[in-house]
Amino acid sequence: MERGVPGPVPRDEPRAGGAQSAPAQGDDARPAGSAAGGFIHLRDLSPEGARVSDSATANIGVIGLAVMGSNLARNLARHGHTVAVFNRTHARTLAHLESHRADGTFVGAEALEEFVASLMRPRRIIIMVQAGAGTDAVIDQLSPLLEEGDIVVDGGNAHFEDTRRREAALREVGLHFVGAGISGGEVGALEGPSIMPGGSTESYEALGPILESIAAKVDGEPCCAHMGPDGAGHFVKMVHNGIEYADMQFIAEAYDVLSASGLTASEVGDVFREWNTGELDSFLVEITAEVLDQVDAPTGRPLVELIVDEAEQKGTGRWTVQSALELGVPVSAIAEAVFARSASGDRSVRQAARGVLSGPDRTWPAEAPDRRQLVDDVRDALWSSKVIAYAQGLEQIRTASANYGWDVDIATVARIWRGGCIIRARLLKQISDEYAAGRLATLLVAPSIERSLADRQDSWRRVVASATTAGVPVPGFSSALAYYDTIRAERLPAALVQGLRDNFGAHTYRRVDREGTFHTLWSADRSEVEI
Amino acid sequence: MERGVPGPVPRDEPRAGGAQSAPAQGDDARPAGSAAGGFIHLRDLSPEGARVSDSATANIGVIGLAVMGSNLARNLARHGHTVAVFNRTHARTLAHLESHRADGTFVGAEALEEFVASLMRPRRIIIMVQAGAGTDAVIDQLSPLLEEGDIVVDGGNAHFEDTRRREAALREVGLHFVGAGISGGEVGALEGPSIMPGGSTESYEALGPILESIAAKVDGEPCCAHMGPDGAGHFVKMVHNGIEYADMQFIAEAYDVLSASGLTASEVGDVFREWNTGELDSFLVEITAEVLDQVDAPTGRPLVELIVDEAEQKGTGRWTVQSALELGVPVSAIAEAVFARSASGDRSVRQAARGVLSGPDRTWPAEAPDRRQLVDDVRDALWSSKVIAYAQGLEQIRTASANYGWDVDIATVARIWRGGCIIRARLLKQISDEYAAGRLATLLVAPSIERSLADRQDSWRRVVASATTAGVPVPGFSSALAYYDTIRAERLPAALVQGLRDNFGAHTYRRVDREGTFHTLWSADRSEVEI
Repeated sequence: MERGVPGPVPRDEPRAGGAQSAPAQGDDARPAGSAAGGFIHLRDLSPEGARVSDSATANIGVIGLAVMGSNLARNLARHGHTVAVFNRTHARTLAHLESHRADGTFVGAEALEEFVASLMRPRRIIIMVQAGAGTDAVIDQLSPLLEEGDIVVDGGNAHFEDTRRREAALREVGLHFVGAGISGGEVGALEGPSIMPGGSTESYEALGPILESIAAKVDGEPCCAHMGPDGAGHFVKMVHNGIEYADMQFIAEAYDVLSASGLTASEVGDVFREWNTGELDSFLVEITAEVLDQVDAPTGRPLVELIVDEAEQKGTGRWTVQSALELGVPVSAIAEAVFARSASGDRSVRQAARGVLSGPDRTWPAEAPDRRQLVDDVRDALWSSKVIAYAQGLEQIRTASANYGWDVDIATVARIWRGGCIIRARLLKQISDEYAAGRLATLLVAPSIERSLADRQDSWRRVVASATTAGVPVPGFSSALAYYDTIRAERLPAALVQGLRDNFGAHTYRRVDREGTFHTLWSADRSEVEI
Repeated sequence: MERGVPGPVPRDEPRAGGAQSAPAQGDDARPAGSAAGGFIHLRDLSPEGARVSDSATANIGVIGLAVMGSNLARNLARHGHTVAVFNRTHARTLAHLESHRADGTFVGAEALEEFVASLMRPRRIIIMVQAGAGTDAVIDQLSPLLEEGDIVVDGGNAHFEDTRRREAALREVGLHFVGAGISGGEVGALEGPSIMPGGSTESYEALGPILESIAAKVDGEPCCAHMGPDGAGHFVKMVHNGIEYADMQFIAEAYDVLSASGLTASEVGDVFREWNTGELDSFLVEITAEVLDQVDAPTGRPLVELIVDEAEQKGTGRWTVQSALELGVPVSAIAEAVFARSASGDRSVRQAARGVLSGPDRTWPAEAPDRRQLVDDVRDALWSSKVIAYAQGLEQIRTASANYGWDVDIATVARIWRGGCIIRARLLKQISDEYAAGRLATLLVAPSIERSLADRQDSWRRVVASATTAGVPVPGFSSALAYYDTIRAERLPAALVQGLRDNFGAHTYRRVDREGTFHTLWSADRSEVEI
């Protein structure tokens, strides 16, 4: 079950990872009723289900025991925490208690009141239910049962605007609300995710050490840190997912280009495995090799060739681009990745176009470099495009932080993405170090990044030009490269756009040679007036 | 003042354009108090400002007399309508009445009550105020004064969701609300815009003939038609603007490529002027020649080289992309245009990157075709990219129409975009004819379009490949081409994306060779299970 999660905390090393200061609890804190199996069912303590405050033994609670919630609860128990658990359907709570007693101490409750009563104060409660109405319903039921200073955590993929709304509402009644992005999937939840909590500084003091204890560790440091107030945590998680979309699209393009040049799926898998030993070392590159290597047993063919080529999505990529549009941050490479998925799933359009629209038949240009050179070129295109997506996403976080008053530290964001999460990659250490070394207007001008891009861009251009000629779509690679050429340009033709806007809409323009706002009287004598 | 608006209705030809059935009114309907100058000020009739119902002589009213509202009122008056006018600041009403008496009959009012009383029933009132809170404020003041069956028109650039909300609210109180997109800028408002009204069929019966009388005419047909219920009109206008962003970005890229290959601004202007006589014939190509030809008097240099190269935007392009993301429609070329504007205005990033990020110095590749060939190549890239943006935008309208139950007719949309609006172009007749000829899964497979794309794509690929090599950013051209290659692909690497999603998130996949939903047990024995 390792799935490449770096630094999972083994079962026998609870509370590994150093500097956390989780509240004292452990075996000696267990009440007398503690079952040998390591869990308590509150009904055993208080059959009438009424007053159970003397049994407030849990230092953290989890509501919602679907696989993510259950795995997170197990991870907490494995690290020595006493974990109160609650699920709307009580049978699931019982199943969890039954199946996972080996992980540590759980306190199960049938009623939400019991669950709340089983928690030491300030209560720390992580909600792991379906995002949206489900979260609101739980908050509505839960908050009247809580007391001032208690902390409610939403560990789902909530939209950051919902998190802002919920945080403000709970703050009104004296409760802390923490929107915590959690990345790493089911395995990460169990073995060490990357955790991105937002909310008040005060709540992080009480909650942070517990979350840090269960997060992935890289170089001894937990992949969890306070991101900033209210929606900051869920915003950072959203952009993480947007970058993940881009990463996957670039990988898909690399595979497509290499396939078009004649490599088999398994040969491309070998290429990715080799890449994973170098600067592309990352979870997604690692599992790409795994997926490309997979042979379908019944047919003996590579599985990837049998999977329907329509990519699905669940919303966070789309949210990332929508937010970037709102903030005015160009995240073009991420947008291309989101749209590439939509286009792949646009069945009626593809059905109509396939075999009707003409174009080159993926034949690699005759003047193309040899296979070794092509593989290296594609590697460089992949690395460079990836850096662009990170630059765009981090710029979006920086802008949002300024916009919403969050004061998010970008170096810290990159640091906690080094492990546990889906986009974890060797590159993130470099990014974190570069941001820590000083304020950057864009990641791309960080010295080590700028030099690498300088070295790789010829390859990158060759891949885009050849794919364009061969009719292999590389929307991600080409968009990323266009962004690179856009921001480094001495002059952009945006000046013409402004001229056109002034012509048809009197939208005015500024001049490079003097201050002011100007308009040309296009319909009259074409003289210029200052507005 | 012609500004290339095709088919403007000359001042001396009121009610030109044929089939409209505007309610009878005219000189003989003017009350006794009518001033020689052709306008009435209601205070002259009813000094106490109280009961003025006997003076209900106007068949249409305009609220808001900034330049767009004033010009629309003048256009209405020029076509023989008696136009009630109202502005919050009465001085502006007086100025309008004073300046434009030559246009026809206006009825000015100082109080909103008078304004309402001056209108024949059902009252038709066009609101031309700042979108957003301004519109809501006017509606709040206005609606209590109206009676069942009256029609309130919002002629501003409202977000279609706001229009849906307002339409529902006014329907509750028995009023019709019409969100009408109006394109053509100030000149179009005066001389014949393209008008895209949404709302009830009943309201269009009473309002449509008046709007059609003032709309641009092409081949005798008004560029105005009922788009569909509630938000349909503003939605169509929003996408019109999204396509306009893309059109302008492509034009800017064409200019940039030709400049990089050595042409002066004025030479590129000549190229655009030549293009405007062929299949690229369009308002934007026409004014591009005009802008590129413009010489700055003080410096003697081309104006375009003196305009600050940061393109601004007002929101409808961003809304288009945000809505497309919501609907799952890939409008990648439009998105690149929106982001190209944001990137151009990202001053701190550009300042940091300029001179630091290395790359080719816009030197056109040695193997590039000669200048004549290059000009033709760029023309083909421009035409093809433009078609992609139209295909994406029209697909977005089709999807929204199905989603919101609007039943928008795409052929009609293209038909009313042929004149009056900013994106008017010869191409739109072709598009309208193709959609009228039969249902199209995508514009790109329409026979005449498909053939043209087949002929032009080699040129298009050469432009993208050469620009990529030369370091000239062409995010629009390359994104449009990638879309073309994506939808015509036999197989997409989206299959790998699905494989990765299944690997890290158990998101499952479908197979090409049998029905069902599958998951590979990646962490266990890697066998496949059916879900």
